[in-house]
Amino acid sequence: MIKAGIIGATGYAGNEIVRLLMSHGNASVEWMVSKSFEGQDFSTIYRNFFEVLNMECLGNDLDPLLDRVDVVFTATPQGYLSSILNKEMLDKAKFIDLSADYRIKDIETYEKWYRIEHKSPDLIKEAVYGLSEVNREKIRGTKLLANPGCFTTCSILTAYPLMKEHLIEPDTLIINALSGVSGAGRGAKTANLFCEVNENAKAYGVTNHRHTPEIEEQLGYAYGKEIMVNFTPHLIPMNRGILVTETANLTEGVSEDMIRAAYEKYFGEEFFIRLLREDENPETRFVEGSNFVDIGFRIDKRTNRIVMMGALDNLIKGAAGQAVQNMNIMFGFEENEGLTAIPMVP
Amino acid sequence: MIKAGIIGATGYAGNEIVRLLMSHGNASVEWMVSKSFEGQDFSTIYRNFFEVLNMECLGNDLDPLLDRVDVVFTATPQGYLSSILNKEMLDKAKFIDLSADYRIKDIETYEKWYRIEHKSPDLIKEAVYGLSEVNREKIRGTKLLANPGCFTTCSILTAYPLMKEHLIEPDTLIINALSGVSGAGRGAKTANLFCEVNENAKAYGVTNHRHTPEIEEQLGYAYGKEIMVNFTPHLIPMNRGILVTETANLTEGVSEDMIRAAYEKYFGEEFFIRLLREDENPETRFVEGSNFVDIGFRIDKRTNRIVMMGALDNLIKGAAGQAVQNMNIMFGFEENEGLTAIPMVP
Amino acid sequence: MIKAGIIGATGYAGNEIVRLLMSHGNASVEWMVSKSFEGQDFSTIYRNFFEVLNMECLGNDLDPLLDRVDVVFTATPQGYLSSILNKEMLDKAKFIDLSADYRIKDIETYEKWYRIEHKSPDLIKEAVYGLSEVNREKIRGTKLLANPGCFTTCSILTAYPLMKEHLIEPDTLIINALSGVSGAGRGAKTANLFCEVNENAKAYGVTNHRHTPEIEEQLGYAYGKEIMVNFTPHLIPMNRGILVTETANLTEGVSEDMIRAAYEKYFGEEFFIRLLREDENPETRFVEGSNFVDIGFRIDKRTNRIVMMGALDNLIKGAAGQAVQNMNIMFGFEENEGLTAIPMVP
Amino acid sequence: MIKAGIIGATGYAGNEIVRLLMSHGNASVEWMVSKSFEGQDFSTIYRNFFEVLNMECLGNDLDPLLDRVDVVFTATPQGYLSSILNKEMLDKAKFIDLSADYRIKDIETYEKWYRIEHKSPDLIKEAVYGLSEVNREKIRGTKLLANPGCFTTCSILTAYPLMKEHLIEPDTLIINALSGVSGAGRGAKTANLFCEVNENAKAYGVTNHRHTPEIEEQLGYAYGKEIMVNFTPHLIPMNRGILVTETANLTEGVSEDMIRAAYEKYFGEEFFIRLLREDENPETRFVEGSNFVDIGFRIDKRTNRIVMMGALDNLIKGAAGQAVQNMNIMFGFEENEGLTAIPMVP
Repeated sequence: MIKAGIIGATGYAGNEIVRLLMSHGNASVEWMVSKSFEGQDFSTIYRNFFEVLNMECLGNDLDPLLDRVDVVFTATPQGYLSSILNKEMLDKAKFIDLSADYRIKDIETYEKWYRIEHKSPDLIKEAVYGLSEVNREKIRGTKLLANPGCFTTCSILTAYPLMKEHLIEPDTLIINALSGVSGAGRGAKTANLFCEVNENAKAYGVTNHRHTPEIEEQLGYAYGKEIMVNFTPHLIPMNRGILVTETANLTEGVSEDMIRAAYEKYFGEEFFIRLLREDENPETRFVEGSNFVDIGFRIDKRTNRIVMMGALDNLIKGAAGQAVQNMNIMFGFEENEGLTAIPMVP
Repeated sequence: MIKAGIIGATGYAGNEIVRLLMSHGNASVEWMVSKSFEGQDFSTIYRNFFEVLNMECLGNDLDPLLDRVDVVFTATPQGYLSSILNKEMLDKAKFIDLSADYRIKDIETYEKWYRIEHKSPDLIKEAVYGLSEVNREKIRGTKLLANPGCFTTCSILTAYPLMKEHLIEPDTLIINALSGVSGAGRGAKTANLFCEVNENAKAYGVTNHRHTPEIEEQLGYAYGKEIMVNFTPHLIPMNRGILVTETANLTEGVSEDMIRAAYEKYFGEEFFIRLLREDENPETRFVEGSNFVDIGFRIDKRTNRIVMMGALDNLIKGAAGQAVQNMNIMFGFEENEGLTAIPMVP
Repeated sequence: MIKAGIIGATGYAGNEIVRLLMSHGNASVEWMVSKSFEGQDFSTIYRNFFEVLNMECLGNDLDPLLDRVDVVFTATPQGYLSSILNKEMLDKAKFIDLSADYRIKDIETYEKWYRIEHKSPDLIKEAVYGLSEVNREKIRGTKLLANPGCFTTCSILTAYPLMKEHLIEPDTLIINALSGVSGAGRGAKTANLFCEVNENAKAYGVTNHRHTPEIEEQLGYAYGKEIMVNFTPHLIPMNRGILVTETANLTEGVSEDMIRAAYEKYFGEEFFIRLLREDENPETRFVEGSNFVDIGFRIDKRTNRIVMMGALDNLIKGAAGQAVQNMNIMFGFEENEGLTAIPMVP
Repeated sequence: MIKAGIIGATGYAGNEIVRLLMSHGNASVEWMVSKSFEGQDFSTIYRNFFEVLNMECLGNDLDPLLDRVDVVFTATPQGYLSSILNKEMLDKAKFIDLSADYRIKDIETYEKWYRIEHKSPDLIKEAVYGLSEVNREKIRGTKLLANPGCFTTCSILTAYPLMKEHLIEPDTLIINALSGVSGAGRGAKTANLFCEVNENAKAYGVTNHRHTPEIEEQLGYAYGKEIMVNFTPHLIPMNRGILVTETANLTEGVSEDMIRAAYEKYFGEEFFIRLLREDENPETRFVEGSNFVDIGFRIDKRTNRIVMMGALDNLIKGAAGQAVQNMNIMFGFEENEGLTAIPMVP
C-alpha cells in the first residue's frame, strides 16, 4: 500500500484523483493541499465525499508533507510545479504532474506557447510524457511524470497508429475537438457561467491553443519527422467529455483493411482503448465515468480521406484516470487497478 | 456466487442492474431478456458495455431460464410480472420486481390508481415492500420483493422518522418532487425528446400521480394511521436525480433537537442515508452515481413548519441500486456489496 | 417618443430592457450605464447586438445624464438606488427600479430580510409596487416604480384571485418555485458555473429567501389581513423560466367553478395572463421569450386542497418585460407596446 | 397583404414559419395542414400560441386550399412535395419548399444520396435554390423555391466569398459542423430522447450526410468547377444552433486583408450576414432567435491555412427565417420584413 499526496485537490481534476484513489487497492490518500480551501474539510467542498472521506485541506508548506508519501499528484496551475521542484524533492517522492510544465521537451516551444518562463528547465529531460499506451516502458522507470492534457490524449491516440505506420499524410491532419465545460476548471469566470455556456457552441483558441505543440511533438515522434496540424477546440454544453474528429489524406494505396490492421497492431490488446465495430462512431456518453478511449473511423473513397474519431472522459483518461494509470505503471501495480468502473449511461 | 437473470434489461433501470452486478463480488448476470432487442448483443444497445460484457438479449420464454438462476430482476411494464408469476416460479428463484405490481397491499387501491386488473392478487400478501432501511427484517425472508419507486423511496425516507415519532402533523404533509428525465424510461415518446424537455420545467400527474398511494400507505404504517398527502412531481432537464421538498406543520412543542434526534435514531447508523450537516441542503449531483440518500431540513419558526429535503439517484437508490441492496439482504451478503461507488462530481 | 436611460445595462435584466426597448414604438435608449464595463461598446459584451446597436457603456456620473431622459431603469444591486435617489432626481425623470429597494413598505421588514440600512426611507411611500395587473391605477400616476421580483410576480399572480375572494385558507399556502439560472445574475460566482448547476437540482434560501416578505405583503393586501407563507425556491439547470407550484386548503364549500370564476373575474381580460384550459399545466417553455404568465390549477378532492401553478420568463415578465409594461402604463402607451413577441419553441 | 398556407405546420420548422408570419406586416397565415394532428387546434400542440392564434390543423386535401393562398410553405418529409407538385398547382400559388426535393439540379446525385426516386424531375429546372444572399435575382422571379438546409446555408455562406475569389484551394476544404437537436425534427425517435442526447456529443452521417452534395454543388458554382469536400456533422446537447468550422489551404500569396476584403465585397452590405470583428469567433447564442449569420475567421500562418467559422439559428436562417426572407424577395417586400428580431441572450 503506497501513500499519495495531492496538491490542488479541490479542482475538478484533483477531486477525481481523490475519488479514484479511494477505490484503489494499493494506494491511499495521505494528505491533500488546496491553497484556496486551506483548513476546510474536503467534504464540505465536494459534498459527494460526505461520510466517505474526512480530511482537511492543507496549505502548501510541502517540506513536512513529502516525507509521508510515495507519490505526489500536482493538479496545479501552469508554472507552479516547475517553480518549486528540485532533485531533492524527487528523491523523496515520485511526481505525477497534471499541468503542462514538463510535457514539452523544447523549452523555446514551451515558453512561446505558454508565455511563462520555465524555472527548472534542467528537470525537463528527466520527465517522461505519460501517454500510457505509447510510453509504457519509459513511464515504468521515471520519477517525474508529465501527464498529458485531455485534448492531447484524445487527439494523439486517435491518429497514432496511422501516423506510426505512415498510412496518412501527416501535414494534412486537421483536428476538430469538442469539450465539455469541466475542462475549463472550477475558477469563477463569467465565461463559464451556466447561462454563458448553456445553449451555446463556440470555437476558441483557434490557431493558437496550447495543446497544439504537445500534439505536434508526439505525433511527430510517431511519424518520425516534425509535423504541423490545425487543432480547433470547441466548447459545448455538457459537463464531461472530449470528442475529436480528425481528417487526413490517406497515403496512396492505403486500404480500409490496412487501417484496421494498424489500429489492431498498436491498440488491439490495450485494455483502455476500444476500437469500435464497423459503422460505429464514438460518443462521449459511452466512456463517461471510465478510463476508456473509444476510437472509430470512416474512409471517404470520394475524397480519399479518412475521418478518425475518438472519445474520452476529460477528467479521467484525460486527467486523473491516466494519472492513476501512470502511477500503476510506475509502481508495478496492475495497470487497470482502481480504473475498471464501467461507463454510466445515461 | 449466485446467478441473476434480468427481464427488461434494455430499459434504463435494467441496464443499471447489469452495471451494478458486473462489479458485485457475490453475484453475476446469467442471462438477460429484452422483448424489444431479442437476439441483439447488449453491448450494441448500451455501448458503454463494449468489451466489458458480451451477452445476447433473449426473448421472454422464461421456463428454461428460471432453472439457471437464483434471483430474477424484473424491470418491466406495469402488469407484466403479475400476469405471469406463480408459486412454482417463486420456488425456482427469488423475484425482485421493479414495477409497481406488488407494492400496494390493497388491491382496490392498486386497481383504482393503475387502472389495471391485478392477475395474481393472491401473491400480493407474499410480497415484501423493499424499502431496505425500513423493512430490512421482512426483506431477509421473502421470495418476492416489491422494489419501491424512485419518488416513493425519496419521499418516504425523508419524512419517515418524523412520522414514526409523531413530530409532524401527518395530514399537513405537502410533497413537491423534481425528477430527471431518465425516470420516464427509454420509450420513444415525443414528450421526452430533448427539445421538449430541455429548457423547460413542468408539473405533471398533479393530484393523481400513481406514486401517491404508495407514499400514503408506507407513511401511514409509520404514523400508525391512514394518512393522505399532496404529491406533486415535476420534470426538469437533467438525466438523473430526484429531489423532494416536503413541508409539514410541526406537532406542538417539537424542537429542532427533537427532529435531529429522530433522524439520528432511525438513520444515524445507516450506510446509505446521509443526514447532512446543519445549513446544508441536499443536491442531486452529490448523490449521482451512488446508492446514497441525502437528507436535510430547516425549521421555520415563523410558521412553525418544517421543510424536509431529500435527494437520490433515481436509477440507483430509486431503482437498480435498492434492488441490489435488497438482493444483498435476501441472500445474506454485506448490504453494501457492489454499492460503494462514490458519487461523481461534476 | 420618450427617451430612456438604463443603469446596470450589462446584467441579464438590463440587457433585456435594452432588447425590448429596441423594438418599442414609443421609446428609445438614450444612454446606458455600466460600472463594470464603462467605456466599452455594449455590443462587445452582448454580441447579439452587433450591428444592431452601437452604444458605449457610461460610468455612473448621473447628473448630466438625467436631463436627457424621461425615464430611468435601474437594474442595480440591492441598496444602490436608495442610496442616491432624491426628490430632485425624481423631478427630472421617472424611475423604474428593478431592485428591491422600494418594494417593501415596512422598513423594518426590509432591513430585517435584506440586512441593509435603507438610505432614503422617506421615498418608500412615494413608490408604487409595480405588479401591473393588480396596481394598474396607482402605477399610472407614480414617479417611482418598484418593479417586482421574478419569484414574486409569479407567486402572487398565481394565487391572487383566490386570496382576494377568500377561496383558500391563507395561512395554508405553501409555495414551491423552480428557477432558471439567469435569475442568479451574471456575476462570476463558482456556484453558478455550468458544471456546478448542470445535472443538478437543489433548494436554496429555505425558510429565509428575501422574496418571502414581498409575497406575504402583497397577498396579505389581497386577502385583507397579514399572512405568512412558506416559500421554497429551487435552482434547476435551464437558462430562463420560473415555475411555481402552490398548494393551499380550499375554504369550505368552494367548488371548481368558483375557482375558475375567480380567475376569470380578475384576469380573464388581461392580455399577459393566460388562464390555461382544463387539464393543462403551465410549462416554462411556452412563455419563454414573452411577457406572458400562464396559470393553471387542479383540485384534489381527496385532500380538499388546490394545486395552483404559474409560469413566466424571469427576465421578461419577471423583470425587464414587466418594467416596460409599467413604463407603458406610466406614460399612457398601449400596455403591450413592444411586448407582443410570441414565445419561441423549442 | 398576401395569404400563406403551411403544410407540415406542426414540425419544428413549420411552427417557426407560423410564428414568423404572425409578426409579418404583409403576410398572414390562411391555413395550416398537419397530417399527424388533423382536426386539432394548433395551440394545443404548440401552447406558446395559446390566445395568440386560434387555428385548426387541416388534412392534406390541398385542392380547395390552394385557391385561398398566394404562397405555400412545405415543411414536409423528403419526397412528399415532388410526389404531388405539378404546373397547375404552381399556377395557383408560389411554393417555398423546405425539404430537399428541388435543391439538387442533378437528379442522379439526388437519387444516389437520398435513395428516393424523384417523381417530378421536370420541375427541378424551374426551381431556384433559395440561398437568399447569393441567388437574390433568380429568387425574385421564381414560382418554386428550394429552400436550403440548415447545415448547407451555414457551410456555404461561410466559405462563399473565398471560393468565389479563389482565395482558398477548393479541394482542401474540410467542414466540421455542430448542430442543436431541433434539426432532427419532432418525430418520436429513441435516438433523440433527452437522456440519449444530453451530456453527449457524437459525429453522425460521417462521409455520407445528405447535405454534402448540396454544399458541393453550390460552392462548385461559386468557384467555377466541380469540387468535393469532407463534411462531418455532430449532434450536441442544445435546442437550436448550427456552428460550422471550415479549414482550407490558402491559395499562395493570399493575405488576411484580401480575405477580409472578399467577405466585405460579397457580404458587407448584407443585413443578415454579420462579419465579426477581428479576434471574435461566432457563437450560436448570439444569433439564436434571429435570422442572422455570424461569420469570423483566423489565419494560421504556420500551416498557411484559414479557419472560417459561421453560426446561425437552424430553425430561422437555416429553415423558416430564410423561407420568409425568400418570400419577401419573391413578393417584392422589404427583405427583412418580419425578420428583425434581435437574438435573445441568455
